[in-house]
Formats: sequence, structure tokens, C-alpha cells
Amino acid sequence: MSLKAVLLKNLLRQSRLSSYTPIVINYHRDYRYNNTGKEKKHNRNAIYALLGSVIVGSAANIKQKESKNREKVEAGAKKQGLPTYTAEEVSKHDNKKSFWVTYKYGVYDVTSFLPSHPGGEQIYNAAGLSIEPFWNVYGMHKTEEVYKLLESYRIGNLHDDDVVDHSDDELWAREPHRDPRLLVMTAKPFNAEIPPHLQVQNFDTPNELFYVRQHMPVPELDAKEHRLRVVLVGDTTTVKEFSLEELQQFPAARLSAALMCAGNRRSEMNKVKPVKGLSWTTGAISNAQWGGVYLRDVLAHCGLDFAAVEGKHVIFTGSDIDATGVNFSTSIPLYMALDPNAQILLATSMNGAPLPPDHGYPLRVVVPGAPAVRSVKWLQSITISNEESGSHWHQKDYRSFNPTKTWETADFPSAPPVYSLPVTAAACEPADGATVAPVDGHIQVKGTSDTLLPSAPPVYSLPVTAAACEPADGATVAPVDGHIQVKGYAYSGGGAKILRVDVSSDRGRTWREAQLQCDAAPPRTHYAWTLWTISMPVDGACQMEIWVKATDSNFNTQPENFDDIWNIRGILSNAYHRIKVNIKR
Amino acid sequence: MSLKAVLLKNLLRQSRLSSYTPIVINYHRDYRYNNTGKEKKHNRNAIYALLGSVIVGSAANIKQKESKNREKVEAGAKKQGLPTYTAEEVSKHDNKKSFWVTYKYGVYDVTSFLPSHPGGEQIYNAAGLSIEPFWNVYGMHKTEEVYKLLESYRIGNLHDDDVVDHSDDELWAREPHRDPRLLVMTAKPFNAEIPPHLQVQNFDTPNELFYVRQHMPVPELDAKEHRLRVVLVGDTTTVKEFSLEELQQFPAARLSAALMCAGNRRSEMNKVKPVKGLSWTTGAISNAQWGGVYLRDVLAHCGLDFAAVEGKHVIFTGSDIDATGVNFSTSIPLYMALDPNAQILLATSMNGAPLPPDHGYPLRVVVPGAPAVRSVKWLQSITISNEESGSHWHQKDYRSFNPTKTWETADFPSAPPVYSLPVTAAACEPADGATVAPVDGHIQVKGTSDTLLPSAPPVYSLPVTAAACEPADGATVAPVDGHIQVKGYAYSGGGAKILRVDVSSDRGRTWREAQLQCDAAPPRTHYAWTLWTISMPVDGACQMEIWVKATDSNFNTQPENFDDIWNIRGILSNAYHRIKVNIKR
Repeated sequence: MSLKAVLLKNLLRQSRLSSYTPIVINYHRDYRYNNTGKEKKHNRNAIYALLGSVIVGSAANIKQKESKNREKVEAGAKKQGLPTYTAEEVSKHDNKKSFWVTYKYGVYDVTSFLPSHPGGEQIYNAAGLSIEPFWNVYGMHKTEEVYKLLESYRIGNLHDDDVVDHSDDELWAREPHRDPRLLVMTAKPFNAEIPPHLQVQNFDTPNELFYVRQHMPVPELDAKEHRLRVVLVGDTTTVKEFSLEELQQFPAARLSAALMCAGNRRSEMNKVKPVKGLSWTTGAISNAQWGGVYLRDVLAHCGLDFAAVEGKHVIFTGSDIDATGVNFSTSIPLYMALDPNAQILLATSMNGAPLPPDHGYPLRVVVPGAPAVRSVKWLQSITISNEESGSHWHQKDYRSFNPTKTWETADFPSAPPVYSLPVTAAACEPADGATVAPVDGHIQVKGTSDTLLPSAPPVYSLPVTAAACEPADGATVAPVDGHIQVKGYAYSGGGAKILRVDVSSDRGRTWREAQLQCDAAPPRTHYAWTLWTISMPVDGACQMEIWVKATDSNFNTQPENFDDIWNIRGILSNAYHRIKVNIKR
Repeated sequence: MSLKAVLLKNLLRQSRLSSYTPIVINYHRDYRYNNTGKEKKHNRNAIYALLGSVIVGSAANIKQKESKNREKVEAGAKKQGLPTYTAEEVSKHDNKKSFWVTYKYGVYDVTSFLPSHPGGEQIYNAAGLSIEPFWNVYGMHKTEEVYKLLESYRIGNLHDDDVVDHSDDELWAREPHRDPRLLVMTAKPFNAEIPPHLQVQNFDTPNELFYVRQHMPVPELDAKEHRLRVVLVGDTTTVKEFSLEELQQFPAARLSAALMCAGNRRSEMNKVKPVKGLSWTTGAISNAQWGGVYLRDVLAHCGLDFAAVEGKHVIFTGSDIDATGVNFSTSIPLYMALDPNAQILLATSMNGAPLPPDHGYPLRVVVPGAPAVRSVKWLQSITISNEESGSHWHQKDYRSFNPTKTWETADFPSAPPVYSLPVTAAACEPADGATVAPVDGHIQVKGTSDTLLPSAPPVYSLPVTAAACEPADGATVAPVDGHIQVKGYAYSGGGAKILRVDVSSDRGRTWREAQLQCDAAPPRTHYAWTLWTISMPVDGACQMEIWVKATDSNFNTQPENFDDIWNIRGILSNAYHRIKVNIKR
């Protein structure tokens, strides 16, 4: 059974409600709940795709290891002393005034929870229904915290006849093997960071360590059977189809490019004020050598009019499908796709090997310098259209808001979609909070530590003698005048090249320049990341706070703090990176 | 007599030292004073051009109206009771250990002043000589403060026979007429801002109000006689020459582009820690419609190999010449010149009219998105070379340093030249410190003002009732709930487009989005500025502090403060723009 069939089967298994017709019901529901006029513009697919939320719970909720939690407590057990409802009865509570859902045996009135749902209006798709098929796709719900929260809304038991087995075994049975060194954020869908110290070990990240960001289950595709459809919408719509073999007839192209999730470093922004989204630390960026053909060449071959570009978009559709069978899709403006500098690739290889399933096997578009969401995996169609992608992922995510905008006041249609990335940098080695020994240091007698507690921020602007620390007072032996090695990455989107990485260990009072490792591509077509390393002198303090900021070829640099770039989605989180390092004495 | 002849005549008029040979002497001097090995690499022109400093005194020294001051006090009058020296004797004190100069009748031992010279090592060119020919070109020295400073180093009188008339009348006699509305920073050379309220009056700045930044006197050129030389340096060097008529045979090109001095808004950075350079406020940016032909087309016509780009540079040389007769020049990398997106123009018209003399008549290169210094005026030659321009302006200025670098530690050759500009924004109307009346306001009784003094920063995060202000206590009539109109510009280099301008009147607590006025060019080829306007509500406070920041199409935004972007030259000064406005009651 295909994944799509499994997904639909799961949804339709709504017991005696098997006449459930997701397209129509969803459309009406959405219209009802958002009767502002704006929603009317949505095409059926857009509404439908609302199910496929990429919003996966507030950042604070993400950190749990769901695999561990799932064994312990589960919601939905039959409970004595509660009234019994039929699915038919539950289904009537399908609106903002009375909103019920079921989970296994549990019946829940979550009306008062609606405004707090981290995934926003996606919850409306489960009105009066079992939430289990949705949670099977968005597995980040399956944590002890969420189960407890759900049970707090418990009002009854579902009638025995209406309880259906919504096992997700089939849905996730074909997930690829993953490297155990990846730091898993969510298992279903699979989202995982590369550990910081491995990030800076290689300029090109080994494929098995390349960070993974999935929205849905990984589709199982066959390179021999896979076809790419190119659709030019116009007075006479043209459709061309290419096998991967046929694509290879275009000139071979190579590209050194980092891909970074727009939400990379969201966890730091989250400290200012909570945001919604995966709580990435610095690990949602990796670099690779991509091989394939230029999108531009393929579009030219298909007869696209390169002179009629204005207002047009290139919609990329993947083979991955959401809980209701809608394919993932997003778009970029056509002017961007045709810019020779943009070097957009239809990639079939990654670091010399075929694309791994987690990275889009057998075909992925790589849009360098743009948020990685635009580099659609498992690419099955390209549509040149007068409209942006109508998908949820395009319309309701990856847009730029100012810090004042809330989920209530944010107007998605008028907000700029994020097609590029600001300059960023991170310190990866040593890890934040790590204890390191200075090298080349020598021994000296350490003074008392009566002015600074170990946990107090060290005052680096005081003379060296004042910076005393653990262990407690009295003369002890400690290395001083040594250095520690600090390593990290820096990156800027839109083809900008990193020109300088400044590192400070005295809270910005003085800055030192790191040594850079980058490839040869000039600015405007520089899409790889830059690795950097610096030897930082240590003084008498037991803890160093390292600040990092980069300057790119447009001479943009990073904002000092997250406050004024904070945004509801926690994306574009590129303020200074700050880590604390304990000095071994 | 040509300007060049005037300049040389002035220099050579060193009385009985008429055997003065500036090229050789300068070369040796520079070598002697900078015996670090690095200086040896300088070609003769580079050393020679050191005279042509663009460093025009510390920002704090610039503000005086020199025309007024010159009438009052002058240095160099004959003084009784001091020893008399001949020019021959003075000329022996030409080194760091004993450094003398003359000015009219005055002899000065400025040895101890050398490290403090705002123009750095340029002063070494006047060792043992009269400084008057240099001050004639760099007229910003001619202020009461500098005269007083000079006299404080007075040690004697110059022998009557050696006192020469170094009048600068001839040098500056052919300066063009300037609009009196321009805010003059320095008269010789002419540097002037456009007043902020005029800046936002038109999307395209009228030619007569376009800010002016000159390094030297304006050359007097004849469009009919002017020739552009294109030199391709290689195994066989190719030289082509074009009259303006011949240039017109290339396809006509138009470009909407802002030009901005890299030092725009330096005055704000200067408040963090003094920097050297003209103390521009927000007025060193203007926008125009440029007409001409593409540089790319001309280079292709000249037979340039577009495939051999790496490591090559395009040197632009103007007809303006410094105190020793060296032409102004700077360069950009060749990859940048050949990028079709870069849209670099050889411009002959500005807003539909021929270029005015102040803006490069009859030919100027316009490098949009780059600091305006790269858009060389009075363009007379283009050289494709394996080296960057060796000129002082290119080698010793317009480079990017981190805040820790001082004039002592800055290594110019390894610092990245500034070829692009970061995102910026400024509020232009109302002016900083202006008093404005809210419109659409209504009348209400105002409370007491016991908690806030008029001069204290208003605490906007308090409720409205707490924000009380002038006039002093007691119930008075005041408009409240009104709005004030705020207008400004936003700009980002490298072809980036402004997507959002955020304005805050509560110190960043909340942000509102301004309405934008921009042209249609898409990101990566968007070179015009963006004008913005916003209606800001006023509360009960008598003073509003308005903060402005922009976000560009690469999603870069501005740093909050100037501290960490501070650099010795005070360039790239793009932190938030903050103005204070008093509310009329």
C-alpha cells in the first residue's frame, strides 16, 4: 500500500463517520473559522494543506525525548465514572463555541485550548474527530506533557464501537536508517541536528551527519521510475516530463552550498519571548558539494519565455505528502530562478554520492542562499505560475514579521516570504558550557576569589588580578596566559561571502579576527558556509563568555541581541552567538 | 593655466628650495618613515597620492564654518622676539625626530604633534616645507581652531626672502555654482549634505540638491574633447579610446540608483568614540535616474576575455587631481563589473540632464549598491589589471575594520575593501529635535508633570496618564491621541531591496511598519533607495524618541547600536537611526 493510501486510510478510519470527505469538510471548516474574506482566496489545495503544518509545538515543548516518554504514560485509556459519547455525538462539537476531539477511548472538550494551540488553526481540521491520524503524522504531539495536557480536557469515553485502531506503524515503517550521532529533535517527522563539534570537523558535512528537517514521512522513491514534470502555465499550458536519465543530458553542474533552516538558532531567540517551532540550536546548517543540472537550463529547454518574468513564480512540489494526502510544495520568484548567479540546481548527488533518502533521493532542487525549505526534496514537479505556491508551508510559514507581530495580528499574505538569509555565525567548539584546558599555558599562583562568585559574570574589563575564580580562596595552581581554540561557522544568504568573523571574550570591549576557511566563489555567487578558528587567550577567570559576529560581502553584520529581530516563527535568528566556556585550572 | 599646472606651481613655489622634486622626495620620505617592508610594495603613484588624503580632520573638528573663521584669525604673521630661520635650515628638520614646517612667516616644530595628526602620515609630505600648498587643497585645515593649534607650536619666523605667496585663488577659481540650500561640511574641497526634509521630498533628488562629496577641486572638462581610455593590461596591452559620441553607439541604458557615501551617518558613530572623516549626518545619500551605457558592453567591445576574470580588477581614474598632480582613482573586482545584475553604467546623464560638474561632467561611472567612492567622477580611464588601484584613496581608505582596530593596529592591505553597503534607514522628517504638532488630535486636560522633567527621557512603557510634560503643573490644554507624520529613507547595497521599515516610539518595545515607496526592480538588482512614511500616534509625553530600522531582501537588518560596528574610519555607520521630536501642545 502506498504511503498516500496509508495516510488516507488512516484519516478515513473515522469509525462510523466513514463518509468523512476531507477536502470538502476542510474547505468549509476553514472558511467558517476564518470568515474574514481573505481566506476565500485560498484554493482548495491551500486549505487542504493546512493539515500539513510545519508548526510543531512551542519551542519549550520540543526538547523531550519522545521515544522515552511514549512508553510511560499514554492518553486515551478508558476511564470509569465518565459519560460515554458516540462518534456521531462528538462530531457535532465541531466549531469554535464547542470543540471536541477524541483520542483512543478519550473524549475531550478542548474549546478553551484552541487559542493556545502551538500549531494554530490546523487544529480545526480535527474538529469533532479523532486526533490520532494527525498526531501520527505530527508525532511531536506524542509526549508525556501533551498527553497530560490532553487528559486535563477529558470529559468522557468514546463508545466501544467507535474506537478504531489508528496505529502509525505502517506510516513510519519505511523511514531510512539514521546516524546515531545526530541529535534528534523529533522522531516523527524526523528532525535532527548535527552536533556542533562534528559541524566544524569537515568543510563539507558527511551525508550521514547532514542535519535533517522533515515535514512528513520520507517517501520511498525509485530513481528509475521517478519523473520530473515541468508545467508552464499560460494561454497554452505546456507540460514536459523528464526521467533522471533525460535530465543528465543537460550540462553537468556542481555547487558548493550550505543549506540552513530559516529556524536555525531559534532556541536563542526563544529566550527573549517564546516562539513556535523546532528549538534548533546551532545545528540546523550543513555544507555539501551538490551535483546535477541547472534549473535554468531545463526551463530554457522547456521553452520558457525568459523575457516575461515579472510577477511569475516557480512552484516546486515534492513527493512527500501530509496527513490528508497533499504534497509538500513551496515557490520562489521566477526572476530568482533565472538569475545565472543564483545557480539553482536540480541535484541528484550530494558529496559525490546519490542523494540519501533523507535529503531528497532521487531528485532535489537546491536553491543556494535561500532558506532550505525552498530546496524541495523528492522533487516531482516544477510549475511556472502567476501565483506563489498556495500550500500551507508557503502561505502560512517562512515569512518575515517584526517583533511586535503576534499570531493574532500577523497578516501572512502581506508579509514578505523569506527567499534569502541574513548573515550569521556560531561558535561550535568548544560547546556552550564546556570545560576546556588552555594550551601553551603555564603555571602560576592564583589569588583569592573574594570578589567574584563562580556563577557571576566575569568582569573582563577589570585588571587581570581582579579576575579570580574557582576553586575557593587560597593559593592554588592554575594555568594562565594560555590559549583556547574556538571554532565555528559563519554564513550569509543571497550569495554573500563572509569577509570577517570577529570574536570577543570581554563582552564586546575588544574583538579579534578569526582565521577563515572558505571556498573560492566570489561574492554574489558565494553559497558555501565559512568555517573559522581562533586561538583566544585566557585570563585569570574561570569562565569565558565568547561572543561571535560575522561581516559579509555586503558589509551587513549581525544584530547584537534577539529582542528586535524576534518574530512569531522564530526564524532568521541571527544575533551574536554567545557561549560560556569554563577554563580548566 | 591648467589645474594641474596650478597645483604643481603651488608645490614647487617652495622659495629657494625650488629644486624640490616631489616624486622622489615623497617616495624616500614615505619609505623612511614607514620602514616596515610593507611600504616597499607601494608604487610611486601610491606614495605620491598619499598627499591626496580623504581624511579631513577628526569629525569633531569639521563643523566650523571655515569661511567665517578665516576672516578673523590667521596663523603665520611675523612675530617679534623669535629667531629667524631660512627655508634651507627648516628643510633639515624633515624627520620624525625633528619635524618642522612653515606657514607664511611662521616656523613650527610639530614633532610632538605628528601622532595626533588626523590625516595620519600625509603630514610627512610637508616635512621641512610650507604646509600652505597642501592646506590650499585640503581647505578644512583653514579654521580658527587649527590656526591656534599651529601657533602653539611656533618657534620662529621664516626669513623674508623665503616667504612665498601661496594664494589658493587660482586653485578654486573654477568651482561650480552650488545651491545655497546644501549644508556645507567643507568648502574646499566642497562637501555638502542635502537637508533631511528635502531628502524625502522627491524620490529622485533634484540634481542641484544631490549631496556632494569631493576630494579635490572640480576639474573643468569639455564634453566634446573628453576621451575615455580603456586599457586591458596583459601580455599585449590593448588601449582603446572613446569620445562621448562614440560611447553613445552602445545600447542606451538607464538605472535608478541611490549613491551613498560609505561615511553617511558617521556623526552618530562618532558619539561612541571619535572617528576620522567628514561628520556626515543622514544627508550623504541621494537617488537619481542615471543614463548612459553599460560598462559591460564597452569592455566586451574592447575584446576583454570574460572567461579570465579571477583575481582581476577594474581601475577607474578620474580627471580630478591632488596637490601633487596625481589623479583620483579606485577599483572594483572584475567579477563585479561583468555581473549583468551589477548594471554598472558609464553615465552621461542624471535625471534627464547632462551630469552637473559636481557630479562628474561629462562622464562618470555609476557602480550601484557600492559606496559612492567607487562611482568615479570625471572618468578618464578604465584599466583592467591584475592589481587593485594603488592609489591612496583605494589602499588607505574605504576598508572594513572591526571596532578594536586603531590607526596603529589597522593593517590596510589585508582589510577587505568596501564594495557593497549594509542595510540602513534614517528618519528625515521631522528633523531630530524638531517640535511638531500632532494632526487629527483632540483636546484634553493634561495632568501634573511631577514625575518627569522635560529633559528626562520619556518612559513610554508607562501608561498614558503617567506621561506628563511641559508646561509645568496644573491643568492645561493639550492635543492627545493625535498623530505625527514621520518620513525617511531606507537603503541597502549590493542590489538588495528594502522589504520592511520598522518604526518604534517606545524604545523598541513595539514596532510599526512604515509605508514604502520604491521602484519596481527585483532584489539582486534593486539599486534605488526606498522612501517611507508613517503616521505615529503620540501619547501624553512632550518628547518622542523615534527609532527606525529596515530589513532588506537578504533579511539583514541593522545593528541596534554603533559600538560593535564602530571603525576607525567611521564608515558603514548603519545602526538604528534615533531622533527626538518635541510634541507641540
